[in-house]
Amino acid sequence: MSGSTLGHLFRVTNFGESHGPAIGCVIDGCPPGMALAESDIQPELDRRRPGTSRHVTQRNEPDTVEILSGVFEGQTTGTPICLLIRNTDQRSKDYANLLDTFRPGHADYTYLHKYGLRDPRGGGRASARLTAPMVAAGAVARKWLALHHGVTFAGHMTQIGEIEIPFESLEHVPHNPFFAANATDIPRLEAYMDDLRKAGDSCGARIRVMARGVPVGWGEPLFDKLDADIAHAMMGINAVKGVEIGSGFRAVAERGTTHGDELTPAGFRTNHAGGVLGGISTGQDITVEIAVKPTSSIRTPRQSLDLQGQPKMVETHGRHDPCVGIRATPIAEALLALVLMDHALRHRAQCGDVRVAMPAIPGHV
Amino acid sequence: MSGSTLGHLFRVTNFGESHGPAIGCVIDGCPPGMALAESDIQPELDRRRPGTSRHVTQRNEPDTVEILSGVFEGQTTGTPICLLIRNTDQRSKDYANLLDTFRPGHADYTYLHKYGLRDPRGGGRASARLTAPMVAAGAVARKWLALHHGVTFAGHMTQIGEIEIPFESLEHVPHNPFFAANATDIPRLEAYMDDLRKAGDSCGARIRVMARGVPVGWGEPLFDKLDADIAHAMMGINAVKGVEIGSGFRAVAERGTTHGDELTPAGFRTNHAGGVLGGISTGQDITVEIAVKPTSSIRTPRQSLDLQGQPKMVETHGRHDPCVGIRATPIAEALLALVLMDHALRHRAQCGDVRVAMPAIPGHV
Amino acid sequence: MSGSTLGHLFRVTNFGESHGPAIGCVIDGCPPGMALAESDIQPELDRRRPGTSRHVTQRNEPDTVEILSGVFEGQTTGTPICLLIRNTDQRSKDYANLLDTFRPGHADYTYLHKYGLRDPRGGGRASARLTAPMVAAGAVARKWLALHHGVTFAGHMTQIGEIEIPFESLEHVPHNPFFAANATDIPRLEAYMDDLRKAGDSCGARIRVMARGVPVGWGEPLFDKLDADIAHAMMGINAVKGVEIGSGFRAVAERGTTHGDELTPAGFRTNHAGGVLGGISTGQDITVEIAVKPTSSIRTPRQSLDLQGQPKMVETHGRHDPCVGIRATPIAEALLALVLMDHALRHRAQCGDVRVAMPAIPGHV
Amino acid sequence: MSGSTLGHLFRVTNFGESHGPAIGCVIDGCPPGMALAESDIQPELDRRRPGTSRHVTQRNEPDTVEILSGVFEGQTTGTPICLLIRNTDQRSKDYANLLDTFRPGHADYTYLHKYGLRDPRGGGRASARLTAPMVAAGAVARKWLALHHGVTFAGHMTQIGEIEIPFESLEHVPHNPFFAANATDIPRLEAYMDDLRKAGDSCGARIRVMARGVPVGWGEPLFDKLDADIAHAMMGINAVKGVEIGSGFRAVAERGTTHGDELTPAGFRTNHAGGVLGGISTGQDITVEIAVKPTSSIRTPRQSLDLQGQPKMVETHGRHDPCVGIRATPIAEALLALVLMDHALRHRAQCGDVRVAMPAIPGHV
Repeated sequence: MSGSTLGHLFRVTNFGESHGPAIGCVIDGCPPGMALAESDIQPELDRRRPGTSRHVTQRNEPDTVEILSGVFEGQTTGTPICLLIRNTDQRSKDYANLLDTFRPGHADYTYLHKYGLRDPRGGGRASARLTAPMVAAGAVARKWLALHHGVTFAGHMTQIGEIEIPFESLEHVPHNPFFAANATDIPRLEAYMDDLRKAGDSCGARIRVMARGVPVGWGEPLFDKLDADIAHAMMGINAVKGVEIGSGFRAVAERGTTHGDELTPAGFRTNHAGGVLGGISTGQDITVEIAVKPTSSIRTPRQSLDLQGQPKMVETHGRHDPCVGIRATPIAEALLALVLMDHALRHRAQCGDVRVAMPAIPGHV
Repeated sequence: MSGSTLGHLFRVTNFGESHGPAIGCVIDGCPPGMALAESDIQPELDRRRPGTSRHVTQRNEPDTVEILSGVFEGQTTGTPICLLIRNTDQRSKDYANLLDTFRPGHADYTYLHKYGLRDPRGGGRASARLTAPMVAAGAVARKWLALHHGVTFAGHMTQIGEIEIPFESLEHVPHNPFFAANATDIPRLEAYMDDLRKAGDSCGARIRVMARGVPVGWGEPLFDKLDADIAHAMMGINAVKGVEIGSGFRAVAERGTTHGDELTPAGFRTNHAGGVLGGISTGQDITVEIAVKPTSSIRTPRQSLDLQGQPKMVETHGRHDPCVGIRATPIAEALLALVLMDHALRHRAQCGDVRVAMPAIPGHV
Repeated sequence: MSGSTLGHLFRVTNFGESHGPAIGCVIDGCPPGMALAESDIQPELDRRRPGTSRHVTQRNEPDTVEILSGVFEGQTTGTPICLLIRNTDQRSKDYANLLDTFRPGHADYTYLHKYGLRDPRGGGRASARLTAPMVAAGAVARKWLALHHGVTFAGHMTQIGEIEIPFESLEHVPHNPFFAANATDIPRLEAYMDDLRKAGDSCGARIRVMARGVPVGWGEPLFDKLDADIAHAMMGINAVKGVEIGSGFRAVAERGTTHGDELTPAGFRTNHAGGVLGGISTGQDITVEIAVKPTSSIRTPRQSLDLQGQPKMVETHGRHDPCVGIRATPIAEALLALVLMDHALRHRAQCGDVRVAMPAIPGHV
Repeated sequence: MSGSTLGHLFRVTNFGESHGPAIGCVIDGCPPGMALAESDIQPELDRRRPGTSRHVTQRNEPDTVEILSGVFEGQTTGTPICLLIRNTDQRSKDYANLLDTFRPGHADYTYLHKYGLRDPRGGGRASARLTAPMVAAGAVARKWLALHHGVTFAGHMTQIGEIEIPFESLEHVPHNPFFAANATDIPRLEAYMDDLRKAGDSCGARIRVMARGVPVGWGEPLFDKLDADIAHAMMGINAVKGVEIGSGFRAVAERGTTHGDELTPAGFRTNHAGGVLGGISTGQDITVEIAVKPTSSIRTPRQSLDLQGQPKMVETHGRHDPCVGIRATPIAEALLALVLMDHALRHRAQCGDVRVAMPAIPGHV
């Protein structure tokens, strides 16, 4: 069971390889009657597109999306939506030297041993390029969630390498190459990345994403808690090594008298829970943080093996992001949207006619 | 879709409430021909059982497991295994005062708004008591993984509240109430917990679990990466707010030249990956850390609402763990085992006949 | 993947063996807030119960159902409902002679070769006894469908062995041991069955079941068409060898000008479709017919093999239904209800807010 | 949950509409290391292609398949295989008159009421054209099953309208437009179809398909019996109204002494079971028959309604098969292959290491 499908009711099946003819996805289960065009999707793809600054891979992919099915006269029909993105700027020869060795920190070794063969061109299936169809599907989910529930998404980088990025305002996020909610520190971040690139090294990043306007009641008690499904989706993004909801690891040192968010008629007083209690949304902001590891494809030579198991040095000269986390913000937003969309439908399926006498308290205070 | 089933091929469906007549699970998909008796399961249940020290809930549950199906003459038949655990020590009256209010940090509020009603007795479905059937199912998975692949599991607490617990030896884990891999600091931890209990407060914990002996090749590229499914399972445990694989959040500040684990004929030189690359096991130890939040049911009065949405103070007097993380170690081990078991079968399904010329390098160095 | 779960949103996981301590099921996904007690389920179990006439197995099982979870103060909570039925009248020694041979037409041979071992007591997992939990789960679905959509179910036997049973009235169904919609021919059917039993032989049956009141719009285009899921559920009943929807095999010789049901403001003029077009309900009666094969456990000696593959005659002396189809009517109704329940929730998930200007035409004319 | 995915481990997700830009599917879970090229798939597509005789629709579609992913240097990699078929000969104007009415026997009415809108061009998603990607996926399954287990498939038409087609030899199947295993009666069938077409009417068909070489042991006890999953897949083919396994409805009048297939060292003496006992393959031929209803799109005017629910006559002038069953044989073979492929992997997952002392008896005698 290859597991290339995310979601149970809003199901996204991802296909493609970095250097194959195309990548894409099929969304099955989208509600009918929603206006949808490529122009709803393309802006999100453009946010994660490579080649937009010197700090990311220089591969030049327009990532133009084509809707192949599921839309008739501009409206979703309720049938599968196939989204296709042609690959256009493959340079597979860059990878010739990787055919008989394994990059440390990369999936080269595990793919070979799982499948007995691997597509080494640009990482094949293991490439972060496969996040493009996730972002495309996420754009469809975001539109439905905005229209039907007023849910909105935001994300930003909070740390790159050793540098923590102070939060100033979400307004800054689109105006720098790092998705930083900060204007002041950008030159410092650019210098840091320039040094790193020159050193032939790479670094990690920490990303924070939020969903606002999620109604109380989405999610399940166990095992498919809303936060468990979020963790699954986030850890499924390339290079992610950690996921936190709300206080996350800070909760370890918090006391119950602090961590438990008190309720008032005006709303919760705090949001240590990150918008999820018992696996079910509280109506507050869903807050998620992820750790992205440093890119494994680096210029610096490193110890590895050849196909006979003999020592061999490896260095990578394809086009790579020195910090794959830089483009992770729109990806993480997309996956959060996909999980919420799925749970919106799951909730409607089981509890679509539940009426609660007590009104929900305001979600965001 | 209520999501009470974990796994795709080794499927565990959990049922029950804290104060209902029974809790349990049905395991569908267990390979046939494995010797199995209650005595294989009971020791794991005993590890997480309540009432074993003054630092955990005083509810007295023997947690005796009964195998209702799927075993014939001491062997698994390949058909569903139903494991039943009768509840015996319910004191539902302790919860009478919670019927018309909501504990801060608890699922009371979200359940009411999702379902329109809730079972308040001992937390109902949201109770950590529902981890008992997970541990029982995990024991079946552990046995199969040990027999067929030599996989073993270990876990220990690394932090309780503000106190980090130095690692001394795994041998200490069974000999203290905290699952600490430490003998020296136990008196200090006991004093800390005694103070906390007297203060009517609660604290969080950090737990580390490992699986050793997992062969290279288990897992999937996306979305159901091995680490993504681990994250899903761990975040599905009550009160967990964060999950890390390998370096986890430390990976943010690591460089590619450090984080990427170099390969040698004698094995990987390091294990920053935590045993997973590209969603697939490397053959190294799978290492996972989780953050458990402080228990929400505490004696200290806190602000909340009544069913009319009016302010009301709430304090909890049922029997509760002051640190729900204390019993989380065997639970986290069980869930790791369940995920690995599922992926063992998934891998065999798709790649059962793959032969790789290059030998796998030693997993553990 | 053992496939012991039916349904996607209203999920029924079945467990147990004929001569184990208990059989039962877990229903995950039941909507909350529905009144539910054992008394809602027991009458359906009593309809299929063994031992109620001389024409069925004389095994004496009260089939008393116990609700273990998912109901609080008489209402479904939205969490898993475990239904348990204890086995009480096992006589496993009757099967001692079957341990080293295979009944022709029975699953003995296939189980051994699939699993490497088998539970021979009363057929183990292959016993028709496992339909009891299906009927129990079906009772829950029937109640919800009746309350929320006014859907009702009916079924009757239309043929037993070579004897076609003329339809007289559904009112007769509860008043004869065959579920025949007929009063006139009952003595003839009884004589037929008495002769068959004396001859140590068995026969098949044809059953017809209907659901009335299903709204237009339930089902999916492909692959999970409403009729495809019905076919799956029906063929999953023990001994079923054929399934028809509407005209079924008669459709082969029908012309398009006859088969296509014309629409009028008063409703469809005919119902050759059996209430499903393009995989989606039309609002008419869903009509299904199934073929049940003759019982394989018979007294007459037959050629078979022993465990060494050598010829060996086999005859069966346990307690068996000479026509397993006699008790199939409530089972088939239950499975039809389970499929419709699942699709009711599936439809609400995706299309819960669809509004159609054109009114649906009357379903039943 | 739209249900456009077939299979659990070999998962085929179908997308597209009759007159959209493309149709296709994504296969997730194909074992790695199998040689695969378009030339493995195209011949099967050519068998079901429209426009090949005067007895089928004159729509001229080359149905050229393109492999977009999952294959590297001519071998499957174990990652999703996307198969794309561009639509080239749409004439959507033919359907303008259907926009505000409903063909009797067609999905027009049910789609509108389910989704609130529909794509009327050539039937949209309800078109038999969507069986092309099923056939393409089936070709991949067939290749694997042949290579790994020697399984082969055959099918033929056994009845068209009122005319039963005597079985002569499978060798005739490719040499007539009806997939008849008969040479003698072809002129009579052609005359029958010519008359029907001139009359502006349509008729049904009965198709028989077989799989030979399936090993004993594939399938599950319940609910996902091998025959249940076959019934699901077959009833999921457009226009199918009935499914039989082995004796099918003939089993009703058979006695246990006849129906139960006796075992001998040389194999089973008969095959009334159709190769499945207790939901698990016996090693004999899997035999399946299906009933295909007459095409609903006919030239003859019929009573229907307009979008206001007022009476309106409807006749259809697009290009249609007068007997949609004519092209159903390769489709049914493909779906049988897909079900078997899925169960081959499911069996390997759970029982991959089962060894049985007793040898399997010969399957085919």
